[in-house]
Amino acid sequence: MTGDQAGPNCPLPDRDIPRIQMAHGGGGRMMQNLIRDIIMPAFRNPLLDQQHDGAIFPGGHGEMAFTTDGHVVQPLFFPGGDIGTLAINGAINDLAMCGAKPWHIAVSLILEEGFPIDDLRTLVGSMAAAAAAVGANIVTGDTKVVERGKGDGLFVTTSAIGRVCTPSRPVPDAVQPGDAILLSGDIGRHGIAIMAARAGLTFTPPLESDCAPLWPVVEALIDHGIDLHCLRDLTRGGLTAGLVEVAETVQLGLEVETAAIPVSEPVRNACELFGLDPLHVANEGRFIAYVPSAQAQDAVAVMHRFGDARQIGRVAEEQTGAVVLNSPYGSSRRLRLPNGEQLPRIC
Amino acid sequence: MTGDQAGPNCPLPDRDIPRIQMAHGGGGRMMQNLIRDIIMPAFRNPLLDQQHDGAIFPGGHGEMAFTTDGHVVQPLFFPGGDIGTLAINGAINDLAMCGAKPWHIAVSLILEEGFPIDDLRTLVGSMAAAAAAVGANIVTGDTKVVERGKGDGLFVTTSAIGRVCTPSRPVPDAVQPGDAILLSGDIGRHGIAIMAARAGLTFTPPLESDCAPLWPVVEALIDHGIDLHCLRDLTRGGLTAGLVEVAETVQLGLEVETAAIPVSEPVRNACELFGLDPLHVANEGRFIAYVPSAQAQDAVAVMHRFGDARQIGRVAEEQTGAVVLNSPYGSSRRLRLPNGEQLPRIC
Repeated sequence: MTGDQAGPNCPLPDRDIPRIQMAHGGGGRMMQNLIRDIIMPAFRNPLLDQQHDGAIFPGGHGEMAFTTDGHVVQPLFFPGGDIGTLAINGAINDLAMCGAKPWHIAVSLILEEGFPIDDLRTLVGSMAAAAAAVGANIVTGDTKVVERGKGDGLFVTTSAIGRVCTPSRPVPDAVQPGDAILLSGDIGRHGIAIMAARAGLTFTPPLESDCAPLWPVVEALIDHGIDLHCLRDLTRGGLTAGLVEVAETVQLGLEVETAAIPVSEPVRNACELFGLDPLHVANEGRFIAYVPSAQAQDAVAVMHRFGDARQIGRVAEEQTGAVVLNSPYGSSRRLRLPNGEQLPRIC
Repeated sequence: MTGDQAGPNCPLPDRDIPRIQMAHGGGGRMMQNLIRDIIMPAFRNPLLDQQHDGAIFPGGHGEMAFTTDGHVVQPLFFPGGDIGTLAINGAINDLAMCGAKPWHIAVSLILEEGFPIDDLRTLVGSMAAAAAAVGANIVTGDTKVVERGKGDGLFVTTSAIGRVCTPSRPVPDAVQPGDAILLSGDIGRHGIAIMAARAGLTFTPPLESDCAPLWPVVEALIDHGIDLHCLRDLTRGGLTAGLVEVAETVQLGLEVETAAIPVSEPVRNACELFGLDPLHVANEGRFIAYVPSAQAQDAVAVMHRFGDARQIGRVAEEQTGAVVLNSPYGSSRRLRLPNGEQLPRIC
């Protein structure tokens, strides 16, 4: 047994190691130092300070929501955000779609050997800021390292627990015929911002991702007494997925007016240039709400404090499970999920 | 807008697509089919069937634990387990170390383009079986795909929520001078099994990973009224990390008798061959318990039903924060964390 051959004396002080090494994932002193020097100072809170295999805390009354999402976006830094902000907002937004106030967040990092430690420091800072913005804490985490060429810089999986604040569960099954379909703002910014960053394009004025936490607007809707039948954020698959998946789950028809869907000029132009459909393009700060039609106007007024919200359609009586798009010229067509992706790795 | 050019008619029926494609991560029909055909049938349960952004369920009374772990083990299949079993047991064991009964598990998959779908089917089957073995459910998840050469087959991050069943929190701060240090079984099997699998070595008799859920033995200890001051599973960093990290956190000295630590003959031989220290080698089904010395014998008797458990040492009165190993020949040395890793990517 040769335990004492490897002491805390590293040939190079850790602060002078500019890039992730395999040893940073090995469970030894270098991993401990990475966590102590880079990660803990960003996330610090009493639960994380337990420094145990998990966080322990008193459970809550009422209903809870639990969610997980892997994040593999490229590039890691993009106009309007970075993978840190995106990963935390992704968890927050999944909870918000469950009507749940974000509470505890867990962060799992898979780092590629050679990843710049300064970038890691910046990204954990983004995570901490995004969590703090909604009063949530990052209470537990994990760090792994894979060899150069076996990863892609950094993958982040965030998981989160929230407390459900709606009187009833906002789930697809709660959608009713006659419900109004509300959209929280203009679509397509995130996907186009990522695509432009990859292509080295810049827009004037700059086009930024819509990456943002959705809990504040959902909380405002709840506080206003809006009966949220179902909420859906418009990430991969865009507005199309948010409509089609709900229609198929509840087997009701949805009717949507294309003229009511806000698409900004730069997004529209970029979509034409690249042959993309803005309806399919991912967003990271937009959602649709299915609410009773009698409350539609009030709900839109509340949502307008946060973005260019509109009613874009309604749930039909017919049990077709189909989404029909009505154009301003009187024609209609069925909206379908694309097979694959237009833009890989947008989140 | 060109939403209807891509219908559900894929050029090749999905069942004839043998490998993961980028489109399986795109949020469209192919991703939906992958989840419907491969993942949902393995994990099926009422919470997952909500098919929402997260799982919603009634919260519990009492204390809860929350944990996350990324899994990047190579190879994905190894003697005694696979990344699916490992990832679920990893989450279960982190909860068990918090004295918590596993309840809800979330699974996030990062797949590399080209990954065999048959392997994915096998691995989600392993995950489902490992969760069912402790009465837990996989209630929510996420799937991402990265390009060939940007991942390594499959990474799995598992997060989990459990209900704490101990009267008080088993955390490092609860360790007391005089506590007995109990080890649940022989060490080093997992790391050596992985290393042997990489090197193409086989042992006679076969050496298998100790990968196993620790909740059953922890539950038996709780049921027996053992006062569990602290629990620590011996993954990355092995027994060394489980001792040194606790000693440093509570700033107490630990005294360990090396002769009491069970190491199987094949592990001992392999460690000599490869120049490894079994104390540093990772385990996936072993833990140490810090308990009052008056309960040590009872606790070992309970633990013996699950493995070759032993008392290996005690917590000293001295506030040294150091772990001292006593050899059977009367000599002593300080046990230290290695700097990096002996065996990268063992979990």
